[in-house]
Amino acid sequence: MGLIVQKYGGTSVANLERIKNVAKRVLDTQKAGNQVVVVVSAMAGETDRLIGLALEISKLPELREYDALISSGEQVSSALLALAINSLGGKAHSLLAHQVPIWAEGGFKDARIKKIETKNIRRLLNQGYIVVVAGFQAIDEEGNIHTLGRGGSDTTAVALAAALKADLCEIYTDVDGVYTTDPNICPSARKIERISYEEIMEMASLGAKVLHIRSVELANRYGVKLVVRSSFNNLPGTIVERGDKEMEQITVSGVAYDKNECKITISRVPDRPGVAAQIFKPLSEENIVVDMIVQNVSEQGYTDLTFTVRKEDMNRAKKIAQQVAKKLRAGEVKIDPNISKVSIVGLGMRTASGIASKMFETLAKAGINIQMISTSEIKISCVIEDKYTELAVRELHSAFGLEKKPKKAKAKRKKK
Amino acid sequence: MGLIVQKYGGTSVANLERIKNVAKRVLDTQKAGNQVVVVVSAMAGETDRLIGLALEISKLPELREYDALISSGEQVSSALLALAINSLGGKAHSLLAHQVPIWAEGGFKDARIKKIETKNIRRLLNQGYIVVVAGFQAIDEEGNIHTLGRGGSDTTAVALAAALKADLCEIYTDVDGVYTTDPNICPSARKIERISYEEIMEMASLGAKVLHIRSVELANRYGVKLVVRSSFNNLPGTIVERGDKEMEQITVSGVAYDKNECKITISRVPDRPGVAAQIFKPLSEENIVVDMIVQNVSEQGYTDLTFTVRKEDMNRAKKIAQQVAKKLRAGEVKIDPNISKVSIVGLGMRTASGIASKMFETLAKAGINIQMISTSEIKISCVIEDKYTELAVRELHSAFGLEKKPKKAKAKRKKK
Repeated sequence: MGLIVQKYGGTSVANLERIKNVAKRVLDTQKAGNQVVVVVSAMAGETDRLIGLALEISKLPELREYDALISSGEQVSSALLALAINSLGGKAHSLLAHQVPIWAEGGFKDARIKKIETKNIRRLLNQGYIVVVAGFQAIDEEGNIHTLGRGGSDTTAVALAAALKADLCEIYTDVDGVYTTDPNICPSARKIERISYEEIMEMASLGAKVLHIRSVELANRYGVKLVVRSSFNNLPGTIVERGDKEMEQITVSGVAYDKNECKITISRVPDRPGVAAQIFKPLSEENIVVDMIVQNVSEQGYTDLTFTVRKEDMNRAKKIAQQVAKKLRAGEVKIDPNISKVSIVGLGMRTASGIASKMFETLAKAGINIQMISTSEIKISCVIEDKYTELAVRELHSAFGLEKKPKKAKAKRKKK
Repeated sequence: MGLIVQKYGGTSVANLERIKNVAKRVLDTQKAGNQVVVVVSAMAGETDRLIGLALEISKLPELREYDALISSGEQVSSALLALAINSLGGKAHSLLAHQVPIWAEGGFKDARIKKIETKNIRRLLNQGYIVVVAGFQAIDEEGNIHTLGRGGSDTTAVALAAALKADLCEIYTDVDGVYTTDPNICPSARKIERISYEEIMEMASLGAKVLHIRSVELANRYGVKLVVRSSFNNLPGTIVERGDKEMEQITVSGVAYDKNECKITISRVPDRPGVAAQIFKPLSEENIVVDMIVQNVSEQGYTDLTFTVRKEDMNRAKKIAQQVAKKLRAGEVKIDPNISKVSIVGLGMRTASGIASKMFETLAKAGINIQMISTSEIKISCVIEDKYTELAVRELHSAFGLEKKPKKAKAKRKKK
């Protein structure tokens, strides 16, 4: 009964059979009385194929051409979906970024959406069309195509929902929703019915599989109600929206893990002001994202400094750390790629106490040594040896009772 | 030196190796002191693959979406070629139709180019860029993508050459140039050095393999000098330009054949005014192109009417002919798909005499019966039984001495 933006990921449009299935879903949504805008990703594998071509032809592809190349996958899928809808008797109209237009800001390959003009889409919706928008792309004033980074079609969908003041933004993917943890390593993982933007952002390592983090930030900023659902069944999915009292009754919402980081330690760093900047500035200048930072006092006047970076940045980060260590006359640089980060996430942690100690206790009981700890308002992360990842996730999931539906919250709700 | 437009067909950009080869050629052309605009087709097979997807999803695909779909192939190849040029140290910039812009007129799938704005291209050329334009596509005022019909990239190239007043338009393909006839059936076929627009248009059945006929019409109208060359070697190719005195010394330039037509005869058609219109109007209303028409008087007051259409239109044409025959109370409708059309083409035929009789005599000597004859100023076509096609082509090629370089013309030129 309103305006719904639906986004279908690459697996949902992986072949013609699935595209036809999507066309049926879209038409059903329209028949239920809604205006529908659909955002599509490229057919599964297509973007990777195009990136492969670019890298084969040029080790360092010029980004403007790279974007022109890899954005073609969404042109194909959006036209095919429009054809599929039309062949089922519907009225669909595909739009590329320059036809909407969707304006980009920032460079190529990882641009942001600056503005979406809604006039063309509104006109088409009012004429009864289903509007199919190619995801992942935007244009600048010269008409150059910019892409929005991997998973950027989610961002297209949320930005469209915000610009059109849509009632709902449905993100269709190949999983049923957001789970309390990875069901592949923890069979008692449970689908979450409702989760807050903040929580899903902190659960990046889980969330990234179903939602592009930047799109969640955008949804948070504009209050776009998201639903993460599967396009292969009719299960209700997970609602992502602003946190409320009810959600905060649940202290821990999920257990996340990340095996893609590595640990770098610089020993015997002189303990004086400005040293941290000397280490982390050259890293940020090289676009290396540092996640956790821990500083331990080891002996008088010296400290050991440990931090984590993405595994793909390991060699570059090591080189920089060694240069800085030499300059600071610090000790050796040690690299450990065999780590993983396990986190518990929950809005309720803001007010609850004892959560951290319960986490540490749980890991200790399982014989897992904690190498680093980092906390935020709604997340506690521990770095452990990576071979214990699955064990840690299962023990924490069980310790915080995540396999059970949050009954307390419902009970408390009735009291209100 | 000048401004050169180069067009590379699908086989010339069929894979990354070939795209790199094209990049080298383009750079060499620039290094020789030229400004270069390159037009590319989709990688060989890609357009057919996309058409296949469209037809699989929809028996009658909506043409707007169809065009959005199939134009994506040129987006891929133009970006890849730009990347290849850049990776070799050159400066290239790819442009899609909406970035040039190239404006379309007419419907989808088979649009014409209405206008090309040259400001962006000129600016890039003056900045030292090689400009790579996606062929086959144009846009209308709403930003919808229109394609230009099969082989439309040739038209893009010629239209760009005309708009930019280029010195030369080079059409790169997988053959060395235009031959006096098909070398596959006549080993003595010879590559033509220079040929006129008119001749190559009449040699459609040969020319179509190397040049899109519409692009030749356009080149003729704007006086764009074309060169048809292979991208796989450095042979000089065939120059296509306005006919001149020298060309007219050669009476017959080539022998063409077409096996794609069929013959339809309506017997005992009442011989009264308006009958022809009653037959051919419904055919044209169904977009069936009628090629040759011959009317024979058979008996008093009645005539036999024979015409040829493309084999793909045979069944539809037969149905219409039967309906009309019934209405006119004519006799039966006979269909013969086993025919072929053999033609001799030459600017010099305008003034020379005895050419037609020499053609008929040559066919008669070879024991080939002529079923239909049609003549134009620079072409004589005969319909024969299709099994004699190769024989007829070889006999005519030899009878008119096409295996020999036209020496007379050169001799006369010296006299001038």
